[in-house]
Amino acid sequence: MSLLVTGSIAIDTVKTPYGVSEDCIGGSAVYFSMAASFFSPVRLVGAIGSDCPFDFDEVFAGRDVDLTGLEVRQHSKTFRWMGTYFDDMDDRKTDYIELNVLAEDPPKVPVSFKDSKFVFLANTAPKLQLQLLEQIEEPMFAAADTMDFWIEGHPDDLSMLLRKINCLIINEDEARLLANEHNLIKAGEKILDMAVGAVVIKKGESGSVVCDASGNTFILPAYPAAEVKDPTGAGDSFAGGLMGYIAQAGKTDFATLKTAVAYGTVAASFTISDFSINGLTKTTRHDINNRLAELRKLVKF
Amino acid sequence: MSLLVTGSIAIDTVKTPYGVSEDCIGGSAVYFSMAASFFSPVRLVGAIGSDCPFDFDEVFAGRDVDLTGLEVRQHSKTFRWMGTYFDDMDDRKTDYIELNVLAEDPPKVPVSFKDSKFVFLANTAPKLQLQLLEQIEEPMFAAADTMDFWIEGHPDDLSMLLRKINCLIINEDEARLLANEHNLIKAGEKILDMAVGAVVIKKGESGSVVCDASGNTFILPAYPAAEVKDPTGAGDSFAGGLMGYIAQAGKTDFATLKTAVAYGTVAASFTISDFSINGLTKTTRHDINNRLAELRKLVKF
Repeated sequence: MSLLVTGSIAIDTVKTPYGVSEDCIGGSAVYFSMAASFFSPVRLVGAIGSDCPFDFDEVFAGRDVDLTGLEVRQHSKTFRWMGTYFDDMDDRKTDYIELNVLAEDPPKVPVSFKDSKFVFLANTAPKLQLQLLEQIEEPMFAAADTMDFWIEGHPDDLSMLLRKINCLIINEDEARLLANEHNLIKAGEKILDMAVGAVVIKKGESGSVVCDASGNTFILPAYPAAEVKDPTGAGDSFAGGLMGYIAQAGKTDFATLKTAVAYGTVAASFTISDFSINGLTKTTRHDINNRLAELRKLVKF
Repeated sequence: MSLLVTGSIAIDTVKTPYGVSEDCIGGSAVYFSMAASFFSPVRLVGAIGSDCPFDFDEVFAGRDVDLTGLEVRQHSKTFRWMGTYFDDMDDRKTDYIELNVLAEDPPKVPVSFKDSKFVFLANTAPKLQLQLLEQIEEPMFAAADTMDFWIEGHPDDLSMLLRKINCLIINEDEARLLANEHNLIKAGEKILDMAVGAVVIKKGESGSVVCDASGNTFILPAYPAAEVKDPTGAGDSFAGGLMGYIAQAGKTDFATLKTAVAYGTVAASFTISDFSINGLTKTTRHDINNRLAELRKLVKF
């Protein structure tokens, strides 16, 4: 079924111990769409400036990504991010950020996208996420990401957003901050008390935890990647694989959510194996399925 | 089958955000024996001084722990450790340490213990671990723990030990240090190249990874404990549950090792729920089995 994503499209420059990737394609909506398109048609809503050097038909060649919602603003510039990862790849610093088009009005949801059943609102101001969500007529399952800046600075907007979405997908530090609780299991429970139906907590190389309002819990380790070249986009690829699988399944029960988290884990593992979206570009659905089977075997006892 | 453990017996004083536990029983051999005795008879080899206030018959009441190898040295003092855990329980500092009897000759393995088939050598000098192991006639499966001090200061002894044991059980920082490799999957492979048959890497609240020389890998998250009162002894309880189950099964194939790691995980989860060995004292084999079933369900997809 139809899956819509709103998020950033970026010109990234990334330094890792494996090298430098200059002015490469990035952004939450791009990583999400790449990963989700293994499973389901994707409708992308995002904005770029006239400086954007990427040919999106080529970027998404062979994938069912509808670019009707891609706004090219002639008098704007594209969002830029520059970051450095250190030796252990656990931490990164932002060297430089230029919001550009992200600081303007958000892109509109095209009329042809308004019937989308599955929606992912990548990280941005909760108020904008709400405005975007309101443009969708009857969403069946909406998920969102957020970050420390909104948790600390815009708690009321975020609280409103949580009441409107079905699933929050955040990392462990954000979960702890949002819940004001170090223990992740308790943090998950506290976030569920904020009236969101399910919460997925991403723990990087330690995997993820999912819990829902019916008291279900699922824990999955990360895929044990021996080569990590560039962690950029891992979280958005995770969300893409997760939401893509749910949209494909057309179901939102906990068993589906568990398998979706596993597919998200697998998608992220391909992303981090190379710079930018190269890890996903060279991957096939067959590779995805094989790695899912491998992951299932790795955790079985 | 018979399971022998050599390790420390300690008088611990532990501070955590939940309170202070003064002069309580601790030590690797104690936590190990408590956890292992859910599964198998245990033979404890350790030394204490005349100041030791604990009644070991009472400590191990109802458990099959053979204390023939417990040496009480009239002119010595018992090992003491004092430590503090901080808010997030992830880090601890040692406030005070008194080696006492641990700085003397190691205890002898009693004649009646020499036919032990399963052996766990808790953390101490690799040279002593080797001497202890040599006293066992025909061990079927020997495992050992070690720490940064021996990895950095006594690499040759440790290298010799690795060739003599079947399994190394260490935490992630130790694995990275030993292998000189940050990526844990690669670190595991490098440690296997040191001629040990299997390596279990403990990642605390992120679970554990096991790999063996036949190319098998298993990943298990930690049990999602909502209450962590005192992490002391978690690693030794993990090893106890693991080795106890292997001794009970009498098999050392990878499927057995996987289930053993799961039992170790469960044993550790009970240990950290209370101070000292109290979490284990009040636990039954029935509780252990229930939690294993729960853990199995939590990771299944």
